[in-house]
Amino acid sequence: MNHIYQYGVFSALMQGFSSDGATVSNVLSRCNHGLGTVCGLNGEIVIVDGEAYHFTPDNQIHRLTPTDHLPMIVATDFQPTLTKSLETLRMDTLQKALHPFFPTNQNNFIAVRVDATFKKIVYRIGGPQICPREPLLELAKRQVVKTYDNVAGTLFGFYSPPYTNGICVAGFHLHFLSTDRQAGGHVLEFEAEDVELKAAVNTHVHLELPASEEFNQELMQPDLAKDLHLAE
Amino acid sequence: MNHIYQYGVFSALMQGFSSDGATVSNVLSRCNHGLGTVCGLNGEIVIVDGEAYHFTPDNQIHRLTPTDHLPMIVATDFQPTLTKSLETLRMDTLQKALHPFFPTNQNNFIAVRVDATFKKIVYRIGGPQICPREPLLELAKRQVVKTYDNVAGTLFGFYSPPYTNGICVAGFHLHFLSTDRQAGGHVLEFEAEDVELKAAVNTHVHLELPASEEFNQELMQPDLAKDLHLAE
Repeated sequence: MNHIYQYGVFSALMQGFSSDGATVSNVLSRCNHGLGTVCGLNGEIVIVDGEAYHFTPDNQIHRLTPTDHLPMIVATDFQPTLTKSLETLRMDTLQKALHPFFPTNQNNFIAVRVDATFKKIVYRIGGPQICPREPLLELAKRQVVKTYDNVAGTLFGFYSPPYTNGICVAGFHLHFLSTDRQAGGHVLEFEAEDVELKAAVNTHVHLELPASEEFNQELMQPDLAKDLHLAE
Repeated sequence: MNHIYQYGVFSALMQGFSSDGATVSNVLSRCNHGLGTVCGLNGEIVIVDGEAYHFTPDNQIHRLTPTDHLPMIVATDFQPTLTKSLETLRMDTLQKALHPFFPTNQNNFIAVRVDATFKKIVYRIGGPQICPREPLLELAKRQVVKTYDNVAGTLFGFYSPPYTNGICVAGFHLHFLSTDRQAGGHVLEFEAEDVELKAAVNTHVHLELPASEEFNQELMQPDLAKDLHLAE
């Protein structure tokens, strides 16, 4: 319960690796919540309540099929152990709201779900790569940023401690899914009302790495990881 | 097969965390080879052929018991997929000798075993902590370094890719066990003859983190990871 299953590493995305991947059926057989991306880095994935959604930069939204491949996915069998009702919540108050997990579990992973009315939410949809192995920072230059007001929806994602950078994205990494399943992406900023905050500490991480020629084409450099937040 | 099971992270050792831990019985139920340390960082652990040995800086050697706890252990169910007989091998020729795993699997983990006569082997036995949470770099200042000539034995350990630093020790990390089970420790340098080299690529890593108050006492800083090789 509350194990993390991760396929791929964020350092590989930085260097443009985006083929291979875990199948959706494999992920959903073990996990009910998660986030990730698809081959060619064409958009963002969010899994909420066992349903996997894919958002592309050109505003298409669809459910993933069991045979789709995900070159990067971080998912969990989410069973919250902390639940709070809050009047308001913002990106910059989230860490404080997760008391006592902070600082009591600051060196652990923490899975976070927020159900709320979003007075304002800003998110991005990245990609796609326009050539093989186009680095994530290049994609970031043409990312689509969207802002919605007064939309009901769910955020799901993870806090990853600083020492995990390179394999993970250190800090909070959240994806959005609107209640009407018409909007979603990688969260940059939010102001929420009527909030239900749920969270769980994750002490077990199961990491699977590609062993392909493409994954091993060039040695992945850890120094790139510090730029992850610029792109992600 | 050839999955890695890791308890703890090297960033935590750097900051002197060394309590809690996986039990030896739990590790040996899934793994036949590995390396690690004990509570209080009092020496080095090596697991070879399903037997776990503990070497202390004051020259004591003993088999671990099933109920012993290991605050840091990296182990695997080792089934080599690459085997080579070599006339000679040194620390600085190991990577080349592991062709074709380098560069074909340079971004994967690689488990390595070397059985040989060691014309020369230099290894260290670190610890123990003299106060709670004494950092690994402090222990390194008083580490015991030993040099043996013409000793038969086994090296076991892992290559971890650079992007894993902080959770793992990037590069090669090998522990030594003499054939007579009287000597062993963390390998710094070696010159081997009549070498049997065995290796396997590891694409699955199962990581377990402590959730204790001590583990979470201070936020672990990734910058410390760059010093891991000084201490380890």
